[in-house]
Amino acid sequence: MSIPDEKIFPHATGLAAKTVEKHQDPQELVFYAGWFCPFVQRTWIALEERGIPYQYKEVNPYKKEKHFLDINPKGLVPAIEYQGKALYESLILCEFLEEAYPSYNPKLLPSDPYTRAYVRIWLDHISKSIVPAFFRLIQAQEAEKQEAALEEFNKALATLAAKVKVPYFLGEEFSLVDVAIAPWVVRDYIAAEHRGYRREAVGSGWKEYAEQLEKRESVVKTQSDKEHYAEIYGRYLRDEAQSEAAKATRAGKAIP
Amino acid sequence: MSIPDEKIFPHATGLAAKTVEKHQDPQELVFYAGWFCPFVQRTWIALEERGIPYQYKEVNPYKKEKHFLDINPKGLVPAIEYQGKALYESLILCEFLEEAYPSYNPKLLPSDPYTRAYVRIWLDHISKSIVPAFFRLIQAQEAEKQEAALEEFNKALATLAAKVKVPYFLGEEFSLVDVAIAPWVVRDYIAAEHRGYRREAVGSGWKEYAEQLEKRESVVKTQSDKEHYAEIYGRYLRDEAQSEAAKATRAGKAIP
Repeated sequence: MSIPDEKIFPHATGLAAKTVEKHQDPQELVFYAGWFCPFVQRTWIALEERGIPYQYKEVNPYKKEKHFLDINPKGLVPAIEYQGKALYESLILCEFLEEAYPSYNPKLLPSDPYTRAYVRIWLDHISKSIVPAFFRLIQAQEAEKQEAALEEFNKALATLAAKVKVPYFLGEEFSLVDVAIAPWVVRDYIAAEHRGYRREAVGSGWKEYAEQLEKRESVVKTQSDKEHYAEIYGRYLRDEAQSEAAKATRAGKAIP
Repeated sequence: MSIPDEKIFPHATGLAAKTVEKHQDPQELVFYAGWFCPFVQRTWIALEERGIPYQYKEVNPYKKEKHFLDINPKGLVPAIEYQGKALYESLILCEFLEEAYPSYNPKLLPSDPYTRAYVRIWLDHISKSIVPAFFRLIQAQEAEKQEAALEEFNKALATLAAKVKVPYFLGEEFSLVDVAIAPWVVRDYIAAEHRGYRREAVGSGWKEYAEQLEKRESVVKTQSDKEHYAEIYGRYLRDEAQSEAAKATRAGKAIP
């Protein structure tokens, strides 16, 4: 969940801008987004995968509209407004979409209770181990801390990699595990360019899996132009970012 | 999730021991537990609330049986074995029980998609804000850190308290939110006796809600004698505990 930094580029670009354009009409479901945010991208991928009608609204984190704050006092994105009520938290929103739109296919959670729980265990691993390690890695300033963070990031990814069936986490079926990790996979070049990260170093076919994810249509069409991410991630790499994720990482706390 | 400390008292006592006694027969579902663990108690409360048949197995964290490690290499409790396969993570287990045992009543998740998402948002708050604040509070050693942790704990509780309908979180219906917080409510006397915590100081009817939770039958019958908790929590209060939660708290990381 993120409240990003000031002076952020104000809207989606590239392929994501085209997707935004197609979702301007009023709908029962309003999707409050920030084009740059990996947590937002999760929910966005789920919406696109399942073909659920939604209205995209870009939230300027420093000029939040009164209506948005009225329904969602925390002011975090992603959020949705559904029949006048607000919900937030990227993965909770994805599960909500499964339950509120049962007739839209494909589903991102399998139907078998054991496999659903198995998927949730790996979502939990992504949330508790991979995502925090990513932020620790890009925010680390001293060489020693960067090295420790890289090792931790690789280890967290390797644990997931060992469970991946090809082409996706569960095999042929694209699931919430793929949705949850994809936004970090498409941003891993930041760690590669600045922190020595290499997909090959993770092992267990991670590189091949990452390549499957980054070419998935729903992932591609929710991506903006690279240059605008560079602006944002520059602040993370200097540990100046003021998003909730960045602040929590700095304080040694769980990402809210 | 916890791998607790060595020399822990080996089994449940008091009312919990009576509950254990009643669940010795082989069942399709095996519940791997540690009598002292608040995460275990969540799943245990859910099993008892819903009347699901289960076989209780106490896991001695320092003498784990080979079979347990075979099915569950992380070795964490709570875990369940269901048709020969293992699952873990307290709240994931609770959701699994909802889905794998749909004919057992009452349900702990409401049926309406919006309310289910609302419940999950508050489960997330408990996991990310309340539980970590509890561990930070009891593990804090210096007066200054204790004071800051107490303020943080009270604030996290107050945020939840403001949403509680009486008698339970959703009103008359006992739900997963109540299940998820109850084990910390029945352990809050540790913070009261050693860190100056007072239920009244939280405000918004928190004391009344806490009293409802601690007298709920499923909560009462999963509690052991107080003296044995005192042994365990003494190590937390001196910041010597070696559980995963304790170590993560010490390292400024998310509880695994």
